[in-house]
Amino acid sequence: MQTASDHSQLESEAFCPHYHKAVELIGRRWTGAILRALLSGVDRFSDLTETVPGLSDRMLSERLEELEAEGIVHRNVKPEIPVRIEYQLTARGYALGAVIQAVSQWAEEWLAQAPGHSHHPTATSPSSDH
Amino acid sequence: MQTASDHSQLESEAFCPHYHKAVELIGRRWTGAILRALLSGVDRFSDLTETVPGLSDRMLSERLEELEAEGIVHRNVKPEIPVRIEYQLTARGYALGAVIQAVSQWAEEWLAQAPGHSHHPTATSPSSDH
Repeated sequence: MQTASDHSQLESEAFCPHYHKAVELIGRRWTGAILRALLSGVDRFSDLTETVPGLSDRMLSERLEELEAEGIVHRNVKPEIPVRIEYQLTARGYALGAVIQAVSQWAEEWLAQAPGHSHHPTATSPSSDH
Repeated sequence: MQTASDHSQLESEAFCPHYHKAVELIGRRWTGAILRALLSGVDRFSDLTETVPGLSDRMLSERLEELEAEGIVHRNVKPEIPVRIEYQLTARGYALGAVIQAVSQWAEEWLAQAPGHSHHPTATSPSSDH
């Protein structure tokens, strides 16, 4: 049984526009995979398309531009011959490491199981070290 | 300077199909917001559409069906009059709390700032309690 004010408080915690923007940005098609690759140190355009299966040059360009516009990726043009372009995470982008890590852990624990094994034995799982 | 084997090792860490599936599932349009609402205890269809601005009945149905198919949400039909339907997170869904939390923290720290303030003062930020 909820009062009207409980209810509106619940809703204000339940929705946050910054969270909403963040989760949809990170989860946009290919963006999550690109961020993980950048965090792992892959920094050149061709290495990024090689790393992420199915990622086309066009989609990678589009996603990198979006991430630049959001201040998450910095495009670094090195004046070598031929010109070398590197994509690096900004401080804001690097801070996404905690998110990538949390998603990776969840995926490892809940998706990397035998197929059909949808009920995870939480109570008996050996959550020993780390 | 990387050897060929360094390079392929880097790429295998840089891409993980389970991670990729997870991040795109969570980031699908509206899904992140729905998960946060469910985690906050909003459990009825009409309360979910009220909580998330812009979320239509049709989109919510679609997303809830996807989340049920992934074993993340359980649809609980209570035999009352009128029938009451609740949507609850499974153990797998509840485990996404760590991801939602990490995204929320990042959004709070990096998106909830004054506009144009894209360079976060990492070195001087007061990361005191909590």
